[in-house]
Amino acid sequence: MANMEGTKLWGGRFVGDTDPIMEKFNASITYDQRMWDADVRGSKAYVKALEKANLVSTEEMEQILQGMDQISEEWTKGVFLIKPEDEDIHTANERRLKELIGAPAGKLHTGRSRNDQVVTDMRLWLRDALSILTDNSLQLISTMVERAAIEIDVLFPGYTHMQRAQPIRWSHWILSYAVALSRDVDRLLEIKKRANILPLGSGAIAGTPFDIDRELLRRAEFLFWASLCLTHLSKMAEDLMLYSTKEYSFITLSDAYSTGSSLMPQKKNADSLELIRSKAGRVFGRCAGFMMTLKGLPSTYNKDLQEDKEAMFDCYDTVHAVLQVATGVMSTLKINQNVMEAALSPDMLATDLAYYLVRKGVPFREAHGLSGKAVFTAESKNVSLNQLTEADLVAVSPLFGSDVSAVWDYRSSVEQYSAPGGTAKSSVMTQVEHLRNWLRIKSQ
Amino acid sequence: MANMEGTKLWGGRFVGDTDPIMEKFNASITYDQRMWDADVRGSKAYVKALEKANLVSTEEMEQILQGMDQISEEWTKGVFLIKPEDEDIHTANERRLKELIGAPAGKLHTGRSRNDQVVTDMRLWLRDALSILTDNSLQLISTMVERAAIEIDVLFPGYTHMQRAQPIRWSHWILSYAVALSRDVDRLLEIKKRANILPLGSGAIAGTPFDIDRELLRRAEFLFWASLCLTHLSKMAEDLMLYSTKEYSFITLSDAYSTGSSLMPQKKNADSLELIRSKAGRVFGRCAGFMMTLKGLPSTYNKDLQEDKEAMFDCYDTVHAVLQVATGVMSTLKINQNVMEAALSPDMLATDLAYYLVRKGVPFREAHGLSGKAVFTAESKNVSLNQLTEADLVAVSPLFGSDVSAVWDYRSSVEQYSAPGGTAKSSVMTQVEHLRNWLRIKSQ
Amino acid sequence: MANMEGTKLWGGRFVGDTDPIMEKFNASITYDQRMWDADVRGSKAYVKALEKANLVSTEEMEQILQGMDQISEEWTKGVFLIKPEDEDIHTANERRLKELIGAPAGKLHTGRSRNDQVVTDMRLWLRDALSILTDNSLQLISTMVERAAIEIDVLFPGYTHMQRAQPIRWSHWILSYAVALSRDVDRLLEIKKRANILPLGSGAIAGTPFDIDRELLRRAEFLFWASLCLTHLSKMAEDLMLYSTKEYSFITLSDAYSTGSSLMPQKKNADSLELIRSKAGRVFGRCAGFMMTLKGLPSTYNKDLQEDKEAMFDCYDTVHAVLQVATGVMSTLKINQNVMEAALSPDMLATDLAYYLVRKGVPFREAHGLSGKAVFTAESKNVSLNQLTEADLVAVSPLFGSDVSAVWDYRSSVEQYSAPGGTAKSSVMTQVEHLRNWLRIKSQ
Amino acid sequence: MANMEGTKLWGGRFVGDTDPIMEKFNASITYDQRMWDADVRGSKAYVKALEKANLVSTEEMEQILQGMDQISEEWTKGVFLIKPEDEDIHTANERRLKELIGAPAGKLHTGRSRNDQVVTDMRLWLRDALSILTDNSLQLISTMVERAAIEIDVLFPGYTHMQRAQPIRWSHWILSYAVALSRDVDRLLEIKKRANILPLGSGAIAGTPFDIDRELLRRAEFLFWASLCLTHLSKMAEDLMLYSTKEYSFITLSDAYSTGSSLMPQKKNADSLELIRSKAGRVFGRCAGFMMTLKGLPSTYNKDLQEDKEAMFDCYDTVHAVLQVATGVMSTLKINQNVMEAALSPDMLATDLAYYLVRKGVPFREAHGLSGKAVFTAESKNVSLNQLTEADLVAVSPLFGSDVSAVWDYRSSVEQYSAPGGTAKSSVMTQVEHLRNWLRIKSQ
Repeated sequence: MANMEGTKLWGGRFVGDTDPIMEKFNASITYDQRMWDADVRGSKAYVKALEKANLVSTEEMEQILQGMDQISEEWTKGVFLIKPEDEDIHTANERRLKELIGAPAGKLHTGRSRNDQVVTDMRLWLRDALSILTDNSLQLISTMVERAAIEIDVLFPGYTHMQRAQPIRWSHWILSYAVALSRDVDRLLEIKKRANILPLGSGAIAGTPFDIDRELLRRAEFLFWASLCLTHLSKMAEDLMLYSTKEYSFITLSDAYSTGSSLMPQKKNADSLELIRSKAGRVFGRCAGFMMTLKGLPSTYNKDLQEDKEAMFDCYDTVHAVLQVATGVMSTLKINQNVMEAALSPDMLATDLAYYLVRKGVPFREAHGLSGKAVFTAESKNVSLNQLTEADLVAVSPLFGSDVSAVWDYRSSVEQYSAPGGTAKSSVMTQVEHLRNWLRIKSQ
Repeated sequence: MANMEGTKLWGGRFVGDTDPIMEKFNASITYDQRMWDADVRGSKAYVKALEKANLVSTEEMEQILQGMDQISEEWTKGVFLIKPEDEDIHTANERRLKELIGAPAGKLHTGRSRNDQVVTDMRLWLRDALSILTDNSLQLISTMVERAAIEIDVLFPGYTHMQRAQPIRWSHWILSYAVALSRDVDRLLEIKKRANILPLGSGAIAGTPFDIDRELLRRAEFLFWASLCLTHLSKMAEDLMLYSTKEYSFITLSDAYSTGSSLMPQKKNADSLELIRSKAGRVFGRCAGFMMTLKGLPSTYNKDLQEDKEAMFDCYDTVHAVLQVATGVMSTLKINQNVMEAALSPDMLATDLAYYLVRKGVPFREAHGLSGKAVFTAESKNVSLNQLTEADLVAVSPLFGSDVSAVWDYRSSVEQYSAPGGTAKSSVMTQVEHLRNWLRIKSQ
Repeated sequence: MANMEGTKLWGGRFVGDTDPIMEKFNASITYDQRMWDADVRGSKAYVKALEKANLVSTEEMEQILQGMDQISEEWTKGVFLIKPEDEDIHTANERRLKELIGAPAGKLHTGRSRNDQVVTDMRLWLRDALSILTDNSLQLISTMVERAAIEIDVLFPGYTHMQRAQPIRWSHWILSYAVALSRDVDRLLEIKKRANILPLGSGAIAGTPFDIDRELLRRAEFLFWASLCLTHLSKMAEDLMLYSTKEYSFITLSDAYSTGSSLMPQKKNADSLELIRSKAGRVFGRCAGFMMTLKGLPSTYNKDLQEDKEAMFDCYDTVHAVLQVATGVMSTLKINQNVMEAALSPDMLATDLAYYLVRKGVPFREAHGLSGKAVFTAESKNVSLNQLTEADLVAVSPLFGSDVSAVWDYRSSVEQYSAPGGTAKSSVMTQVEHLRNWLRIKSQ
Repeated sequence: MANMEGTKLWGGRFVGDTDPIMEKFNASITYDQRMWDADVRGSKAYVKALEKANLVSTEEMEQILQGMDQISEEWTKGVFLIKPEDEDIHTANERRLKELIGAPAGKLHTGRSRNDQVVTDMRLWLRDALSILTDNSLQLISTMVERAAIEIDVLFPGYTHMQRAQPIRWSHWILSYAVALSRDVDRLLEIKKRANILPLGSGAIAGTPFDIDRELLRRAEFLFWASLCLTHLSKMAEDLMLYSTKEYSFITLSDAYSTGSSLMPQKKNADSLELIRSKAGRVFGRCAGFMMTLKGLPSTYNKDLQEDKEAMFDCYDTVHAVLQVATGVMSTLKINQNVMEAALSPDMLATDLAYYLVRKGVPFREAHGLSGKAVFTAESKNVSLNQLTEADLVAVSPLFGSDVSAVWDYRSSVEQYSAPGGTAKSSVMTQVEHLRNWLRIKSQ
């Protein structure tokens, strides 16, 4: 009964009481209060539109604006008091406005449904969130690019199928992820551009319930963006984790990003990398959950959509933390150049050996087969590939001559790949410059 | 530096500082503190095992037990003070124990890794959680069964493909979900049984890092159980939502489980049902996220596994709320029996018409075709199926006679389905009794 | 042994035999043969690059081009013979080329790894696939826009929370999905634009293994695009399914998109809509599976990535079929205008009643409450809202006058929403024109 | 029109034609024909029930049984001809039966809906599938157990967090997965037990449309089982992949389970392991897709459920292949015992060093800190832990004496863990025996 006369927005109609569990189930104030600033800004913009449309007087507008400013101040100072009947941040701010300025508060929501308000607030929040994530990403990329520039002369094994394949530059590896992340930023900026466009009909007094469907698209896109971005970082973390094992020993993580074992005193675990790797699952789970919630829903607003907010907030917080930790990891890890270069071995030049024959006119497939035979001979004799005698090689193909010795140089090998995107010093340097330029443009 | 001498468990080794973002990223105290009781209980059991193995003295054991009791009291009273360096509930309790009893606290973790401790605490927590969810489920099922018993005489359309198919009992619909939920309880009890088994080697001092992989299985199972259970309830909610639309008007939700619209004064939304429907996505997202996190992880403990806890807690909280709200909905909704029965129409007896012919010797496929022709004739003449004249029917098949009129009785129709699981009154009553018995056994 | 000398590409090295189950597990020819055309085109382009780089002679190039043309002809005529050792389409075409032209065939793959080739072929295939899906989408949108133009005068209930909310135009509903689909096309075109960009370093002889990571991104994007697009269509299908139930009876599906029941002669099921609704799950499952496969993979090529192809093909085939079926459904369904308009009821104008008071100076929240009281009064008196007497209304608020009767007109009600995106005739017509223009531009 | 009189089961009613794309979209014959045997067996059982219920005569039953036998023979011989109008295996077999025996064929489906038939056929198919997967799993476990028994004396580093932790037996690692798989088998047998129970009401003539919901549960359970099982194997594959890298070099995969590189002659890739790892994603994607399809569906049969079959078949085929390949890998890989044991290092005994102090009365936490200091001292002096002088150790703690030398023995170290599930020889042997017994029982 009391409810009927109470502060519930649909005050006029209800006769029963609400189950307290249902009340809690329905409420979103515990997590949506973080949008308080977006809600205040949204309402301030809205009341100005109402005034222009002569739906509130200039005086009422002023009262509402001042009230909203005071609410903003209360939130900033941490003194805003949430009351039990505040089911969400919008109800809370509206309730407080009424306490502060009385009757005119009731005009603020003319022609605006709660759903319109949620949509606008989320868009404002998302816009800020996207800006921050862009900055975090740019900082990570910048760290990687500058590290790549400094350590450009370090070679180490490039892997495919987790097997040592060909010598590459360490910087080449770094840049491969920097480029992937730069694409992620490009996508983020596309989402941001779309989030800046006001929905059709907004700005006007009468919105349309179908806008909600378009907004959902944007949220689903953000959740998927977060999933893709963290999937990249999960792969980078996996690589780094391998490189930091005792077995590889290519890198040493800073103590700031490692933790010890409560049982084994000698251990130092790459917890930061494991956490980064794990978060791809968490974030994609949120995306999967939201997509499943959307599936088969009738159009316009359904309460099911309330699921979007926790998903959005959690994905934002997670990506925000992961990007910063990844930046820390990348800026503080130490490489063990000697170990990296000692891991190169002549068999990684078997492709170069095949190309030696190709240059002498052997079709590639045949040359590949002959090089494979040379590898097999070396394994049989238990020597490394560059220790085969000329006689051994001639037995494989009469085209081998003494000039084959030029093949066994890792630095010459990498310099062959001078096409754009290759591992030659000039190619890698070009990528560094390309990314530096890109960063300059995006940071503006 | 301070850190080095500080309370970090791996005190002896580290030289660098930890990045505060990394610290927060790594910490789980914000969410795992809810396991404080399980942690206290686990430690009390563990110290008793240590005393039996002569690894702590009886006196030390007593000190530790008393210290743990005081910690328990502090948590209960809400006065336990979490300190910034408490990264998880286990560190927090251990730190407090040391403050309370000094040196002997250091013996509590002899031969027990942090991971062993987490595993034990989670198992204790899960055991309690499973008990509560079992109770919640039983209460929901019981509500449904008793409602089905009372409203057994109400008929309404059974649907397939969202099209009216054949007349069934409303109780039959209720019980179809009650049975599905009873299977969910059976599965829950299987998981509980497995959660009660101590891991191989536990109880003993030296655990094994491979236990963690077995525990993961159990958690994954629980997350999937929650997904399946809420998928059932999402389907039930969808049915009820349809039944509560203006168009169907079969049921009216209690105001306690509805909310109004902030814009449209006449509206009453089935928010409770929409929330129930939505949670299947949320929970399955958690399951998907955890499975993705597990995929391809090397064996034993990896920090990635820290993701399990928030997933488990969130799924538990969600299912816990959904089951209670569903119980409230089912116990308070009103059915509109007149509307339900008015929704039955003679064309829903077309299968019975085919069987009329089958009883006169027509093969079923042919009878089905003939009944279809009768439906077509009725549609063409724009009359309902039972308004066809005998001449109309004889034109379809000469086997039709005046006794066909007996077909047009909904109550007779449902009584034909008297096999177990059928919609005849006796069958439905058998199911009620079966479930009542089952509830009696499970509630013990 | 035979293998060693056989046609396996790594001919030179292996000594053991391959397990036949492993062979089958590893092979992709059963599904990747559909890329035969992309493979032929890719190889033809590649050999031209080789000739320019003087790695094959002009004569060899001619031989290879002619060989590839013949292979193309064999595939077109359905006479290409796959041999047991052809593990994928690339091996098959290369094997056949060698049979046709002998030694020069071995030069085709100089400097090109199998992975490079797969990447290029997939990109060519994807480009074609994206074009076809764009066409399919445009056709669906066009169908919807033209239908919306024709049926612009039909009103029916707009729903939120599956409850009748406010009167809207049927065309407004249609266009809400047409707009969503047009956004999907925009995204598809962005993916296509990116798929047209050659990977860094390609065209040149030496590619880079890191390209594969960038390609994966594109595939993941396509799989997610397909998921989003089908999620939209699952929602549209759900709406249509509701509208086609006996209870709503707003639309009647064409027989071409319905099927009957094998048991119930009277039934006509909206199978087409159910299939459309279901495919969102299928396609998102493919996306989820691929993301999970990617998670935590080390960089560059790993055999795990072979999973991409079946996922891509299946998603393409599914979206291709769904778009065509949806076009068929939308172009053939019949609307039951009378039923649609009869479903409008005065309580759906309660918001308009509140605005009547707002226009008389009552703050919106208060007006909303008063309108709610009017609804409550009508329900208590068991009359419809527009049947309340002036005395009834005045009892709610003295501001009500005889001019309230103007509120009870559905056509006037919808005309209030004349802002862009609104449901007034002019707004809907503007959207029609906007989409017609957009279609004209995109179809070029 | 022709359709109307044609073989469509709902022959009597339809007037329009079906869109050929819709027809294909709707058809399942391309994939469900693999259930031909289950369909034949199901129909044979059904006709016997009809005869008992006097719904077909004994003579008709005989005709039907003979017809079904001939159909079975046609499938076995590969001569069964699928016709364009056969939309699924059930229609195909029924159409053929009518061709073979005429009119009595029309009686076979009396009282059985297509959905009942699909449910029964799937259950029969699933029962067989579960038996085969059980056998495959038992063979894999048996291979692992016997290998563990033979190689019980091999030590190597146990890892946590991908860091070398403590010495363990290689057999201990093997058995950790064998135990996990044995739990998977236990779960499989539970599903099988449930799949054997006939649905309520079946066997009887009138089934109930709600059975479908119970069946779905079983399918969802199977899809999740497959996901869990392959998640285990993805983890095992990841471990093995690490062990087979050049960097670890603990194991060498048989050539039968490796493939070479088309570009790099020296490479041998662990393709089998990569494929195993990848399939967890594929299978979980199927599970995710099916759950999403189920979400929010109204009860009983909806065409959406047609998605189950391809998911079930694909998961079965995938798990079937993975288990066999994993068995092949585990039975043929070679271990490099010298490398494994050379990878043990004294710092992995730091926990033992802490226990040395615990035995002298130091609380564990303090002992852990002191052992950590010893590790730090060793690192500072660039010697291994066991090379610290007594003076070095005494500087850390005066409790260290000359008896500390006994700590530096790997075989003694592992023998400390003699509790059930531990890594002592006796514990591992107990596990071997336990699993052998378990295998004996399950294989019966």
